[in-house]
Amino acid sequence: MDFTEKVLQSERIYEGRVVSLRVDTVELPDGNRSSREIVEHRGAVAIVPILPDGKVVLVRQFRLAAGQSLLEIPAGTLDPGESPEACAARELEEEIGYRLGQLEKVSISFLAPGYSSELLHCYLATGLEPVPNRLDADEFLEPVPIPLDEAIAMIGRQEIKDAKTLYGLLLAHYKLEYEGKDR
Amino acid sequence: MDFTEKVLQSERIYEGRVVSLRVDTVELPDGNRSSREIVEHRGAVAIVPILPDGKVVLVRQFRLAAGQSLLEIPAGTLDPGESPEACAARELEEEIGYRLGQLEKVSISFLAPGYSSELLHCYLATGLEPVPNRLDADEFLEPVPIPLDEAIAMIGRQEIKDAKTLYGLLLAHYKLEYEGKDR
Repeated sequence: MDFTEKVLQSERIYEGRVVSLRVDTVELPDGNRSSREIVEHRGAVAIVPILPDGKVVLVRQFRLAAGQSLLEIPAGTLDPGESPEACAARELEEEIGYRLGQLEKVSISFLAPGYSSELLHCYLATGLEPVPNRLDADEFLEPVPIPLDEAIAMIGRQEIKDAKTLYGLLLAHYKLEYEGKDR
Repeated sequence: MDFTEKVLQSERIYEGRVVSLRVDTVELPDGNRSSREIVEHRGAVAIVPILPDGKVVLVRQFRLAAGQSLLEIPAGTLDPGESPEACAARELEEEIGYRLGQLEKVSISFLAPGYSSELLHCYLATGLEPVPNRLDADEFLEPVPIPLDEAIAMIGRQEIKDAKTLYGLLLAHYKLEYEGKDR
């Protein structure tokens, strides 16, 4: 079945630094009209960084939109023109102070496709080497190395509250445990 | 470490049907100022519906923000004042035509906490019984029943492109396989 919505009109509401907003008037498959609020986002990268000792490095940071600090896998928005792989390497250095290593893509997914265009590329990163840490001027975060099995147990206890971190850890765990991937 | 950001000023940009937008000026932990674009969302519910025969019912729908149709677990936005459990029951009837059953919460997580306040309650639903299907006037979707093992295999082949569907299926699969939960 083809439920494609035809855009009849598009109104620009806001042009921002991280997100922009437009409201589209669409024609539905039955011919009726509706409106769609669309948050535009350049796309982003998240990385599950596994150290040689089997620990995953999470980052704790304050998220104003969530009103609390969250424990997440390292992630960041794509710079204009930047490849997801280059973004992954940059974010690893900026957020946790490690240099790649090998990258393996574990998923490409939309985070909130009901209203956001954000597409997130998620990678498993191995073969990591420490480099001097340099945080982004606009980011304040604390790297938290934790055994991967313990991170998975935290998911079971519902202590991980970030979507990309949930599936990133589960997919990385599966690859390492069942596909016997080297660290 | 406490990286809490203090909101100095808040500007309302847009009040919408699904999302609203504000821009906050914040004081960072080092005393500098920055701005945060915040998409406000009421919160939502997603459900992994497992039929007695072991199939999970996904829904295929067109997502304008993603520019494509996606295969997702049933989900919907909370009505004002609605409990997540009542929302889950309502969405199951509206989207796939099944009545609960048992609900078990598998996660509460933020989908895109870098800019969105949306908190998603995700449930495993079992003991389902068919009821006459009545779709939302504003929703056009096709229910797709599929063996849970096949849905998990689709994740491995990176054919699932929706974040909540990725972790919802993985968490439900874990509960059913390793905790021996009844369907």
